Amino acid sequence: MQEYITKVSSNLDEQIQRKIDLKTKPPGSLGKLEEIAFQVSRIQNNLSPTLSHPAIVVCAGDHGITAEGISPFPQDVTHQMVFNFLSGGAAINVFCRQNHINLLVADAGVNYDFQNNDQLINTKIKKGTANFAKEPAMSVDECKKAMKNGASIVADLHLKGCNIIGFGEMGIGNTTAAAALLCKYAGISPNEAAGPGTGLNPEGVAHKVNVLDKALSLHASVSAPLEILATFGGFEIAMICGGMLKAAELGMIILVDGFIVTSALIAAHAMHPTITDYCIFTHQSDERGHQLMLAHLKANPILNLGLRLGEGTGAALAYPLIQAAVNFMNEMNSFEDAGVSNKGE
Amino acid sequence: MQEYITKVSSNLDEQIQRKIDLKTKPPGSLGKLEEIAFQVSRIQNNLSPTLSHPAIVVCAGDHGITAEGISPFPQDVTHQMVFNFLSGGAAINVFCRQNHINLLVADAGVNYDFQNNDQLINTKIKKGTANFAKEPAMSVDECKKAMKNGASIVADLHLKGCNIIGFGEMGIGNTTAAAALLCKYAGISPNEAAGPGTGLNPEGVAHKVNVLDKALSLHASVSAPLEILATFGGFEIAMICGGMLKAAELGMIILVDGFIVTSALIAAHAMHPTITDYCIFTHQSDERGHQLMLAHLKANPILNLGLRLGEGTGAALAYPLIQAAVNFMNEMNSFEDAGVSNKGE
Repeated sequence: MQEYITKVSSNLDEQIQRKIDLKTKPPGSLGKLEEIAFQVSRIQNNLSPTLSHPAIVVCAGDHGITAEGISPFPQDVTHQMVFNFLSGGAAINVFCRQNHINLLVADAGVNYDFQNNDQLINTKIKKGTANFAKEPAMSVDECKKAMKNGASIVADLHLKGCNIIGFGEMGIGNTTAAAALLCKYAGISPNEAAGPGTGLNPEGVAHKVNVLDKALSLHASVSAPLEILATFGGFEIAMICGGMLKAAELGMIILVDGFIVTSALIAAHAMHPTITDYCIFTHQSDERGHQLMLAHLKANPILNLGLRLGEGTGAALAYPLIQAAVNFMNEMNSFEDAGVSNKGE
Repeated sequence: MQEYITKVSSNLDEQIQRKIDLKTKPPGSLGKLEEIAFQVSRIQNNLSPTLSHPAIVVCAGDHGITAEGISPFPQDVTHQMVFNFLSGGAAINVFCRQNHINLLVADAGVNYDFQNNDQLINTKIKKGTANFAKEPAMSVDECKKAMKNGASIVADLHLKGCNIIGFGEMGIGNTTAAAALLCKYAGISPNEAAGPGTGLNPEGVAHKVNVLDKALSLHASVSAPLEILATFGGFEIAMICGGMLKAAELGMIILVDGFIVTSALIAAHAMHPTITDYCIFTHQSDERGHQLMLAHLKANPILNLGLRLGEGTGAALAYPLIQAAVNFMNEMNSFEDAGVSNKGE
């Protein structure tokens, strides 16, 4: 897979800033929304940006590392939650419905035989990754295949007019995989990277750190970006990573969710650092390693609501604020339009 | 004016919390949204809360204190911005349109003769307050009249089915009035309370502090809550204060915006401390005194986007997150509904 991610053009920077500054408000007074309006205009190289056919792709996968007892929930919850997504009753369903976001659900590698279902995208590589405490989670080939599956879904959505995409995930055990990726890509220690996930107590977190320490020693020689992802990632994480790379290649806006989704972005960033030009960081998760990921990517997210649910919920919740940024750019009067005296006039 | 604000009942607290905890998500993982869902359910004393006919009332008024040179914008901007609201081109118009919030605009006391206009609620007391550096901004009677005007608008909206209401404001000079109210009600010094407002430079802020110091000395003997509001407030601030008190009396949810609107709440809180049971704090403004106001009210707002525009924009922008809280409460499956294994099962 070879992506061609272009650096976002700065050609219109002055004009974009001027348009923002001439809106009927004190300069800078829309704070973060002005940054978002600027970034979206830049990505689209257009003074009148648009958001069309927003989508969130939730990728689900199981993790061999659950054999180490690193989650308080049983692995079965992964497939049970897939059924919950398909029935429309999970948090991500509620928030996507509210905000008119097209929700897609993909089986990246769940340990369950789903019957054919039009609503579930079948991109299963196998029934869960291997236990990376003992061997690489995926082969490089499997990892590439999962990345390609993510890229295909994104390319298809783009063809149908989507220009803004988020990703969500479900996979019992995947905070352990994400913490491992944070350690390897950003040089963070397991002790800092690991958190309670879905609700480990302090002893549980200490055990998770221990599992991570051993796994990182076992695979200490792994250093190429793709190999790191294959060794410690998950099918859903690889799928999201591939989807993000394709989205950036296609000039789409990428909504970055919490801890797991950002671990996929850290992998993508290690392969193509320019990808962050296309990323809007939607929220800071309560999972403590997320702050370190955001610092690694020099990102300043929109929301800080203490969320730690995953599924892409932060991206879905932040979407109306991105709409607001685009809408003020297109709909607000300038001082001149409105006949309002500008400062100092 | 005599309001009867009931303390919100805690009868259903356990059942509300249980309903939140049994949703298909790790307990607490929706963070701030869970707090909002809890509060809204409590206010409505209902496990299936609803938001109906949301409204934001923008109150505009002029301030005699502008004679002291405390704003970089001329007073004419107040009425020019009223025209901008009426034409649909201001930030608050854009955000209310996006989020389907009914926007009302009221002339609380603008220094301009508006022609009759169906879109503008005429509640003018007079053409701007007096200069509180020299005399009280309003008489107590004028202040009461403005409060009553706010209350009437809210009562009318409530009759039409509205159960959630925000307030916005426009008034060149009103950050100086709001800072004075913060000083008097919360015992803060002008040096801490005053900020750049619409864009004062450091010399401008120093001058504003000086004006506040002198005005606070001049009116040092004023201490009754209503008299403080009359002495330092504005027609729009008094109107919002009265509107909030009525909203709480009627059991409505109150969306609290930034620096000016929170100054009105601090006044209302000094009269009826129970009012905060009904308040959702939508954002933390970039105007530095706002943080002190929030601390005074022990409030922890939803958004922190560096906004300092006023008009009720923070309330309008946070509204979809309050909808999300109510929607997850009503639409998300429980573990049992979805057949998902709960932790430890």
